[in-house]
Amino acid sequence: MSKNKKAVVLLSGGLDSTTVLALAREQGFDAYALTLRYGQRHEVEIIAAKKIAELMKVADHAVLDIDLSVFGGSALTSATPIPKGRSDAEIGTGIPVTYVPARNTVFLSLALAWAEVLGAFDIFIGVNALDYSGYPDCRPDFIKSFEQLAALATKAGVESEQRFTIHTPLIDLSKKEIIEKGRALGVDYGMTRTCYDPTPEGVPCGACDACLLRLKGFQDAGLEDPLTYPGERS
Amino acid sequence: MSKNKKAVVLLSGGLDSTTVLALAREQGFDAYALTLRYGQRHEVEIIAAKKIAELMKVADHAVLDIDLSVFGGSALTSATPIPKGRSDAEIGTGIPVTYVPARNTVFLSLALAWAEVLGAFDIFIGVNALDYSGYPDCRPDFIKSFEQLAALATKAGVESEQRFTIHTPLIDLSKKEIIEKGRALGVDYGMTRTCYDPTPEGVPCGACDACLLRLKGFQDAGLEDPLTYPGERS
Repeated sequence: MSKNKKAVVLLSGGLDSTTVLALAREQGFDAYALTLRYGQRHEVEIIAAKKIAELMKVADHAVLDIDLSVFGGSALTSATPIPKGRSDAEIGTGIPVTYVPARNTVFLSLALAWAEVLGAFDIFIGVNALDYSGYPDCRPDFIKSFEQLAALATKAGVESEQRFTIHTPLIDLSKKEIIEKGRALGVDYGMTRTCYDPTPEGVPCGACDACLLRLKGFQDAGLEDPLTYPGERS
Repeated sequence: MSKNKKAVVLLSGGLDSTTVLALAREQGFDAYALTLRYGQRHEVEIIAAKKIAELMKVADHAVLDIDLSVFGGSALTSATPIPKGRSDAEIGTGIPVTYVPARNTVFLSLALAWAEVLGAFDIFIGVNALDYSGYPDCRPDFIKSFEQLAALATKAGVESEQRFTIHTPLIDLSKKEIIEKGRALGVDYGMTRTCYDPTPEGVPCGACDACLLRLKGFQDAGLEDPLTYPGERS
């Protein structure tokens, strides 16, 4: 059995969380990947997450269904049209349609539940304060507050001298820097799925906010995105 | 449309949460009941919660599935035997087999997600610090920490001057006091389900920790439990 410390890593199958998984492994953790399927999520993302988890040799991979659509609310329904071709300025303001209420609180609380079962005190999440400044639950204040809660919320936190740590290695990085870090660790970004509106076969649209941020990141890093977009030759 | 304030009420279908629902309504809130189905939960409890929600005229009732069994761990499997006939002292120590890791953090985060969709700032939960002193997430410190997190976790919390309030009206009450309060508000405890190990038809065992605490509560209050237990005539 491995003597490494265990860490729960929230893995969506996207560029950010895949980079986080590579960073957790580089730091010597045995990674327990947690993927949440919550209604709006596309099946191609779940398939990508499974492939990534396998290729990056995680200790275990849990896929948990939570059907947040029972809460109603337009923010959670898939009927909301996905905006396309927005400028950087437009992308940087307001709440994306993919916003899920209290999302990171829900995700971190489920990661905490698994961490307690595993006896782990480390949780990795790919939040980023630069790309989506409109998200309150991507900021360092929120993360610190969750660590304080975790210490009070579990038997492990109360009885052990160890503290839960929420690792946010991407929080201050630009997309360019994230891609550079991942490439240096050998991440194959051809496996990752980012698009809000892919075809059923998983072809990204190349025009939604997520695709545009991703493409700009590769461009800024002077690298080519290994994904094939519509109109490109594969 | 009602001008009352909205509140999300965590409703298991048990004695405590049903009393909390009555208290939320008495305080003038429109109640949005949230029931979580998480593996170990018996279907009779879900059915009870649905009946209670209907009879107590909630504004809406959401039943959300979360299959925490993907996390493994003996605490979450239903194969664990339920202890029977334990004394008060035994019940008061250690962690019950029904313990779910980080349970109230998960439950409150999901309630917070729904509250944000609804535009509600009030959440009710039937935690009780007396019955289960072994649960860290039933203590006032934990609840206060969650309120602080909620203020940072949501767009509603950050942008509004309103603060999220986690109401815990039972936190300092004995089971006797809870039953007396509920009876005064007209709660029909014949609808509630408490047993950890009921028959498929919903007949309580009368010997698990939950049944024993409930029966003692009625006895201390000088009232009769309207449920029929094995060996009793209905």
